[in-house]
Amino acid sequence: MSDIDLHRPLIGQQGSRTALNTPALVLDRDALGRNIAAMAAFAKANAIALRPHAKTHKSAEIAKLQLAAGARGICCAKLGEAEALAGEGVGAMLITSPVVTPQAIARLAALHKQIAGLMVVADHPDNVAALAAATKGAARKLPVVVDIDPGIRRTGVASPQAALALARQIAASEMLHYAGLQFYCGAQQHIASFAERRAAIEDRTLYLSSVIDLLRSEGLAPEIVTGGGTGTHRIDAALGVINELQVGSYVFMDKQYLDCDLSGEAIPPFETALFIDAHVISANAPSMATIDSGFKALSTDGGNPAVAAGAPAEAAFFFMGDEHGALIAPGHEFKLGDRVTLTAPHCDPTVNLYDAYHVVRGDTLIDIWPVTARGRSR
Amino acid sequence: MSDIDLHRPLIGQQGSRTALNTPALVLDRDALGRNIAAMAAFAKANAIALRPHAKTHKSAEIAKLQLAAGARGICCAKLGEAEALAGEGVGAMLITSPVVTPQAIARLAALHKQIAGLMVVADHPDNVAALAAATKGAARKLPVVVDIDPGIRRTGVASPQAALALARQIAASEMLHYAGLQFYCGAQQHIASFAERRAAIEDRTLYLSSVIDLLRSEGLAPEIVTGGGTGTHRIDAALGVINELQVGSYVFMDKQYLDCDLSGEAIPPFETALFIDAHVISANAPSMATIDSGFKALSTDGGNPAVAAGAPAEAAFFFMGDEHGALIAPGHEFKLGDRVTLTAPHCDPTVNLYDAYHVVRGDTLIDIWPVTARGRSR
Repeated sequence: MSDIDLHRPLIGQQGSRTALNTPALVLDRDALGRNIAAMAAFAKANAIALRPHAKTHKSAEIAKLQLAAGARGICCAKLGEAEALAGEGVGAMLITSPVVTPQAIARLAALHKQIAGLMVVADHPDNVAALAAATKGAARKLPVVVDIDPGIRRTGVASPQAALALARQIAASEMLHYAGLQFYCGAQQHIASFAERRAAIEDRTLYLSSVIDLLRSEGLAPEIVTGGGTGTHRIDAALGVINELQVGSYVFMDKQYLDCDLSGEAIPPFETALFIDAHVISANAPSMATIDSGFKALSTDGGNPAVAAGAPAEAAFFFMGDEHGALIAPGHEFKLGDRVTLTAPHCDPTVNLYDAYHVVRGDTLIDIWPVTARGRSR
Repeated sequence: MSDIDLHRPLIGQQGSRTALNTPALVLDRDALGRNIAAMAAFAKANAIALRPHAKTHKSAEIAKLQLAAGARGICCAKLGEAEALAGEGVGAMLITSPVVTPQAIARLAALHKQIAGLMVVADHPDNVAALAAATKGAARKLPVVVDIDPGIRRTGVASPQAALALARQIAASEMLHYAGLQFYCGAQQHIASFAERRAAIEDRTLYLSSVIDLLRSEGLAPEIVTGGGTGTHRIDAALGVINELQVGSYVFMDKQYLDCDLSGEAIPPFETALFIDAHVISANAPSMATIDSGFKALSTDGGNPAVAAGAPAEAAFFFMGDEHGALIAPGHEFKLGDRVTLTAPHCDPTVNLYDAYHVVRGDTLIDIWPVTARGRSR
């Protein structure tokens, strides 16, 4: 029996969170609900569509909650994610990275046959040609979004002229539908100051507008202009050029985004919903303890986790290898078996380490949700 | 159908590696076999036992190959790993981290009933008392190994006196068997220079010897003295104090260990067997490409991967977020769809991101092995 199956009988038992084997990925159900509702209300008030990014949560359950709250569809970073979520009944998905190899394009064509509402980005004429060839004979056109590089040089066409050429090629293809543009300013999402982030996005949006102006002048005004993220959603909505938001991390609010001023207002618009529960497994040095969570329980790309409960909030965390972390809190006496709750350093890759969310209300386990698309990076 | 199931029909087809969806964890079967044979021959020649660490590979298949080559047993970092491997018929396992919470100790007692040859470390009298209580009525004694802190302050007792007290407590317990000592110098494994690493281990081994001397003088000479790693195995064998080696990474040889001189000799004793195959999915900037592998395909705790094939070896790698990496190679023209093979940065947490090994001989997929204990950190 897996350790997760072992936890199922704990569902609904008062205080059962304390009986979980750890490290466990813990999701505060009420905080999640409030975050989803707050973003939905924001989008409605600002007349902007939502297409939340499922790369953050990889969960069919959470995607369905977002769709039920009014989201137009969801985003997937990879084809494998979209396949996994489609298997659980999620439709209306945009794949936000180009799907390029012949083997992947064959899978994309198969998924397009299977579900309605699948869209994909492209940034190269060879890729558009391959998509057109692979969808020949399909019952419906495949909507393709032109990916615009905002200056990161990750993906996207590099100039307005290249965007125009690609849009023309898509629009001219019998089996493809020119659906619009993607513009994701990844490098700007985590600028800590709201004013500095706004200035950076205003600058990048001038460029996006120049691309749209060129396309419009050629009769190719984009229907969808998709992009933005949790860091810039208020700025994007205020500027009014992007018309659907690819917000992801707002559902969980990891430590990276907690360090950002998201609204320019005193009260952050979202709250922490995702935690890692851990236990002290060694406590032989004064003011110091070793917990059961290391590189295989916490992503290492986004700094260290913080203590949310079970130890002093100011305790310093150090990675101690694959399976362990150290907490140091001068003057605090750790005890063997102490339960410590951590915030996630960077939520997306942390979630990708786990097979399931332990959904809690307070200290009671109320559900277990699979991380539907865990490891589906292909 | 998962992307891995999709790959099964490729097994045995000439050149089928090129048709894999990526990112894919690729294992060179012959290099793996040579590494396992080389370590087995080394251990035999030096009359030292092997207990290879399964936290590196988390694979029942590889554990069985190591056992077939003469290993005395294997190590697991966590109870969940041991449960997963036991489910595939692997026995004779030492759990190298303390198992502390009541829920975990209950699982340990259940596994001890189920399989013969399970051992666990302990570093605290409360934990030993809890193990003794949980195994009451078992058909056989549970062997317990006293974990000695070599100065890392991760796990282990902090003094020879504490080691003696714990050994006495274990030996006096009706249901526990005092099996010996664990001494793992994690901080010294990656010292790049062989001579400096040897000096550090000689110093730490003096301390270990002082612990053993005290235990012997009290009639508690340890049967097993387990420890060491790929970085120090030759030094440990030469010093002759440790009598079984917990080598892990030698099966794969990641970039971290390739940067170490493992033998003080010109030819490294092991070769790279583990790779990540990736594809170029965007190539719109000169001398630069974006590949389909980022934080969710490559661990970030151990530096960057290197290019093994498909692009210039001197290409620089940069992480570009969850799902992407950039390669920069001045003067090289990347093409959309190019297949690029990378070495693993740090093998253990990289393997933990994947559900399966794609086992290859040259460019032909010859098997698919599950990562049996993936995510089993509990």
